Amino acid sequence: MDVEIITIGDEVVTGHTVDTNSAFIGRALTEIGLRVKYKTSVGDELDTMEEALRIGLKRAQVVITTGGLGPTDDDMTKRAIVKVFKRNLIFHEDVLEEIKERYRRRGIDMPAINQNQALLPQGARFFPNKYGSAVGICIAEEGRIFIALPGVPMEMRQLITDEVIPYLRSLKTGQTIKVIKLRTTGIIESALAEMITSKIKIDSSINLGYLPSPCGVDLRIIATGSNDADAEERATSLAGQLVETVGKYLYGREEDSLESVVGKLLVERNQKMCVAESCTGGQLGMAITTIPGSSAHFNGGVISYSNDVKVWQLGVEEDLLATAGAVSEPCALAMALGARKLFRCDYALSITGIAGPDGGSEEKPVGLVYIGLSSEKRTFARKFQFGSNREFNRSRAVYASLELLRREILGIV
Amino acid sequence: MDVEIITIGDEVVTGHTVDTNSAFIGRALTEIGLRVKYKTSVGDELDTMEEALRIGLKRAQVVITTGGLGPTDDDMTKRAIVKVFKRNLIFHEDVLEEIKERYRRRGIDMPAINQNQALLPQGARFFPNKYGSAVGICIAEEGRIFIALPGVPMEMRQLITDEVIPYLRSLKTGQTIKVIKLRTTGIIESALAEMITSKIKIDSSINLGYLPSPCGVDLRIIATGSNDADAEERATSLAGQLVETVGKYLYGREEDSLESVVGKLLVERNQKMCVAESCTGGQLGMAITTIPGSSAHFNGGVISYSNDVKVWQLGVEEDLLATAGAVSEPCALAMALGARKLFRCDYALSITGIAGPDGGSEEKPVGLVYIGLSSEKRTFARKFQFGSNREFNRSRAVYASLELLRREILGIV
Repeated sequence: MDVEIITIGDEVVTGHTVDTNSAFIGRALTEIGLRVKYKTSVGDELDTMEEALRIGLKRAQVVITTGGLGPTDDDMTKRAIVKVFKRNLIFHEDVLEEIKERYRRRGIDMPAINQNQALLPQGARFFPNKYGSAVGICIAEEGRIFIALPGVPMEMRQLITDEVIPYLRSLKTGQTIKVIKLRTTGIIESALAEMITSKIKIDSSINLGYLPSPCGVDLRIIATGSNDADAEERATSLAGQLVETVGKYLYGREEDSLESVVGKLLVERNQKMCVAESCTGGQLGMAITTIPGSSAHFNGGVISYSNDVKVWQLGVEEDLLATAGAVSEPCALAMALGARKLFRCDYALSITGIAGPDGGSEEKPVGLVYIGLSSEKRTFARKFQFGSNREFNRSRAVYASLELLRREILGIV
Repeated sequence: MDVEIITIGDEVVTGHTVDTNSAFIGRALTEIGLRVKYKTSVGDELDTMEEALRIGLKRAQVVITTGGLGPTDDDMTKRAIVKVFKRNLIFHEDVLEEIKERYRRRGIDMPAINQNQALLPQGARFFPNKYGSAVGICIAEEGRIFIALPGVPMEMRQLITDEVIPYLRSLKTGQTIKVIKLRTTGIIESALAEMITSKIKIDSSINLGYLPSPCGVDLRIIATGSNDADAEERATSLAGQLVETVGKYLYGREEDSLESVVGKLLVERNQKMCVAESCTGGQLGMAITTIPGSSAHFNGGVISYSNDVKVWQLGVEEDLLATAGAVSEPCALAMALGARKLFRCDYALSITGIAGPDGGSEEKPVGLVYIGLSSEKRTFARKFQFGSNREFNRSRAVYASLELLRREILGIV
């Protein structure tokens, strides 16, 4: 079944909100073998929404919208549903009661405006919303399935996971797709592509995508087959060849992240790590602790944004800062060593650099980053020269440091 | 001029990449008064791309694509251009030279596959790419403007800012739009809407949107006018009324963030802050240091993820941890006080909580967060009960702590 995802909201088309919803839905549907073929975004404008719905229902079997179900005036998905499906809105007492109950539990009076959310199209199926007052709406008609979800990400995600996926799974038929993602880092896209295309011939029923991001390049295999086993076999076979070809650059698969992979390696070895961060300001610690349960392998760290903190907390010598400077190999070494002793950990990572846009010089340009690693065995640092973008430089530094640790733990040269 | 943005790539429709590109473009074009009416995403599939291009060129005057210009096999935007515009690809020697030069500067041999990127459509205008080897392609034909940009965010952004915006600005005519964003925090969307609609009558030429996010609810005014001054006047007038109505909940406008607003307040007062983070793991420090130049007001912090670090670094008493626990008001107070003394700052913020999904109990459920603030004047803490989502809870805690500091500095009760 082909799918079109339509995200609704002026804030999406004007770019004042990044559309993470359609990415989440795309991933979830692809995983159950549906083919997301189109995504469209339109503003809070009845005519354009109506047009987008009509185009979607013509070219896809499943159309899922997010947004435009809130209580405020700019939310008008239901009006578009009324026009396209020619169904009236009916007041649902039970839905209103649930909304009231939700506010009661939070100890807040329900604002009168929320009554609108109990007005819902006739003859539709409703998906209960655990986190908010806008229920999901589902209309199945003439071989087409239409689903409208709220735009608040947490609410939309719960509805997709708990309601929409089980519902669509029960209807699914026909060709299937198997997706495998392999994650690499430390090699640029074109070099990776040359390495792969020179060694592997790829079948035309398989699509191999290269997806670069600050943490590396992902390889995404999409194999089509006549049934699950067939698609699975094609995808797995290519994945095997890729793993062999890509070698040390491969750090994980699917939902693995450098954070989770490093975490697992440490937990398996009953070891702990800590961090000393300058230009990343806490981003490395934040990345490590996105993983639930990371307290098992992460003790904490020092955000030594100022030189004073490097001296006071990490024991970096003032002389060293005066001669080599804060962005230098000796400073990265001293930060890593200082942090490891302070936090009594097996490994410490340190990051010091010039994130930009200001603060660069001829000798130390923006994007220059030193990453230090200290363990019982040795303390060393690596120099990196990233680009000119602050956000990008900080992300690159975080992932480069985690990759340094991964290779150190595994003894990869 | 109506605009359609088309983002191309399997990774976008399957959701394996979040489409931040179209948000960036949407914002940039809205700011110069163009109306982004549609966004579409399609996979790396020639037929679908061709169809999307044709629909776009029919319903919008400006069509901008991102993605599909890379050197690898899955990048096929140029093939779609050939089909839709009936133009041949021609080898551009000068473009190849520039690509080679770029690799030379990085000390890498150009992979042979990059030669493809010098094959470009006949009779097009090219926008130079500072950060990569895919140039921007622009075709103006029959009153329509078509622009193809690479999908790598840093490259696309540079091309939009340096090339596309100046180019489109020079062509612009007709009705204009003025957008004003007001940023609020500490109040939920529906309460804000009731507060506003009960006091202000909004003209039909103006659209007022409510955009909730973990840091609060933004109000986005889009006013249409016959010229710049007209649109500006309408938008400014409503903004004035909103500022008055919303009062203390308003923390900024446009590109202001809580991080930047708090930073400015501290710099104006020649004061410094530091942080002590438990459940947020460095995210508060990271947020503060997204602002270039934040070393002027931010000394650093301790990521006290484990209890040991709270004791060793911040001087939290072991007894206190044993009796009240790490997620408690006394612990938040001790962390803030400890951090302020350790880092010799005017203000310290502390965050300790249960981010989830595990670790909750009847007495201390997931989402419970204590935020402490210590200054020369006083040390206090506030209790927050957020939701069940780890990522969301951590973001909410970061913004709630910054808002606490903003109000403390300004003396807002």
